Amino acid sequence: MLPFSRVAVIGLGLIGSSIARAIRENMPTVRVTGHDADADVRARSVALGFCHDVADTAGASVTDADLVILCVPVGAMGAVAAEIAGDLSPEAVISDVGSSKASVAAALGTSLPGVTIVPAHPVAGTENSGPEAGFASLFNGRWCIITPIEASTDAAVERLAIFWERLGAKVDRMDPRHHDLVLAVTSHLPHLIAYTIVGTASDLEGVTRSEVIKYSAGGFRDFTRIAASDPTMWRDVFLANKDAVLEMLQRFSEDLTALQRAIRWGDGDTLFELFTRTRAIRRSIIEEGQDDERPDFGRAH
Amino acid sequence: MLPFSRVAVIGLGLIGSSIARAIRENMPTVRVTGHDADADVRARSVALGFCHDVADTAGASVTDADLVILCVPVGAMGAVAAEIAGDLSPEAVISDVGSSKASVAAALGTSLPGVTIVPAHPVAGTENSGPEAGFASLFNGRWCIITPIEASTDAAVERLAIFWERLGAKVDRMDPRHHDLVLAVTSHLPHLIAYTIVGTASDLEGVTRSEVIKYSAGGFRDFTRIAASDPTMWRDVFLANKDAVLEMLQRFSEDLTALQRAIRWGDGDTLFELFTRTRAIRRSIIEEGQDDERPDFGRAH
Repeated sequence: MLPFSRVAVIGLGLIGSSIARAIRENMPTVRVTGHDADADVRARSVALGFCHDVADTAGASVTDADLVILCVPVGAMGAVAAEIAGDLSPEAVISDVGSSKASVAAALGTSLPGVTIVPAHPVAGTENSGPEAGFASLFNGRWCIITPIEASTDAAVERLAIFWERLGAKVDRMDPRHHDLVLAVTSHLPHLIAYTIVGTASDLEGVTRSEVIKYSAGGFRDFTRIAASDPTMWRDVFLANKDAVLEMLQRFSEDLTALQRAIRWGDGDTLFELFTRTRAIRRSIIEEGQDDERPDFGRAH
Repeated sequence: MLPFSRVAVIGLGLIGSSIARAIRENMPTVRVTGHDADADVRARSVALGFCHDVADTAGASVTDADLVILCVPVGAMGAVAAEIAGDLSPEAVISDVGSSKASVAAALGTSLPGVTIVPAHPVAGTENSGPEAGFASLFNGRWCIITPIEASTDAAVERLAIFWERLGAKVDRMDPRHHDLVLAVTSHLPHLIAYTIVGTASDLEGVTRSEVIKYSAGGFRDFTRIAASDPTMWRDVFLANKDAVLEMLQRFSEDLTALQRAIRWGDGDTLFELFTRTRAIRRSIIEEGQDDERPDFGRAH
């Protein structure tokens, strides 16, 4: 028994187009309608063929859907929800894939009074954007966090959990505020740090940009991958999850200052102790199947 | 014409054992003798068979070598050089693979007066350590930076350049102090940041270690790879290249503070402008062949 039979995907970027592709592959009888605010993205999505239909308006995409998934930047969620409010079927469940949950839950609640809303966040992605970047296996083995709110029903939460499991994900449930704290450290802070260091490296007067690029295999290139992520999406995440990001950033800065001091004073023991501890986390991530165990992420040599 | 015919590799970890393997593959008539201070590493290296001989002492490994490459942590270079000083052939060229060059050049010069010394740094590696982690193609397409000093001769520099090209590397020449500044930003600072954030994430009271591991695919897992690098090697790098690391760290901290302020005041334009700029660097790194162009480093999905 399939949890939903007619799914509308609004926002046909990396995540939205991957959901559409994963539905087609894993639940081939489910009808998928897509929409994107950008006419060019709609045309490319039609050509790529991962939806049964691509509607010209958000409203037209949801008319008979029993599941609507909003895959737009978190700052645009409230406006898109307001746009579809009048066209939703009374049975429709509304979900999203936003990387911050408390602010999205509030925005959806305001725009869609009386509607069944189940916010969710699949923790998956690549550095690429747009409908060409999506692929059906993106969610395989990754976690999807469902963050139920007052507007969620137990039945809708359960159906959405089954839906994500059918797409290959493992499902967890979490309070929206706790989600935002956890993701601040496992996703938002890493992106902020990566963006910062790539910016720092490109603004030096004593080291040329060409040198930074040539010798990036010393470690720097790892940071450039996530610093190539979608700028609109990430601007919105930092503004939406401000408090948790600032808290994590404060802790990071304190720890960095402590290491700076250890380097300045030649305190090798403090450095060695930390560098030994951090190895264990990598091993656990690989044991839990959350990263490639091959050296260097499996990069070609 | 081969640049060297008898090479001694001292330190049989990731880099030393990769050099030995790459010599055997690319210059099969060259004789390779190895040594490691750790008897267990020597025994494993004998079993792995990537050297013709593994000598029990550093001195015995160099007696008839025309090239000696020191592949030990930068803090140990001076002591190892002193250990072999009495056994070197007068024609021997001494090189190394250390990640900081000014301090290593000074240490080698002190321990080996009158000897031909050509410091070098192949910018290549993985997060793994030990003789089992090495492989012959590690240097393919990567840059090896040669940093000539007073104790270098033009002929020795030229021979070492040919040697590294035969191992698959591209060769650059640079002043040791400039090398240390460039690598502070492309390698040392990234490692320090990665070690710090992995430490921060493992010390939180509001987020469990299990949560950090489960949701690490949001970006955090990227940092855990380089934070799994060899602790002794990296402790030594930060102590040896203190001034350049502290300078880069200061710039990074200023940039991070500016972003923190932008988030606190809801200044989305500043965030968006940086996040757009950083994408270009990634593209250049891929165009220059310094990273895998496949999404997500080519990780399996």
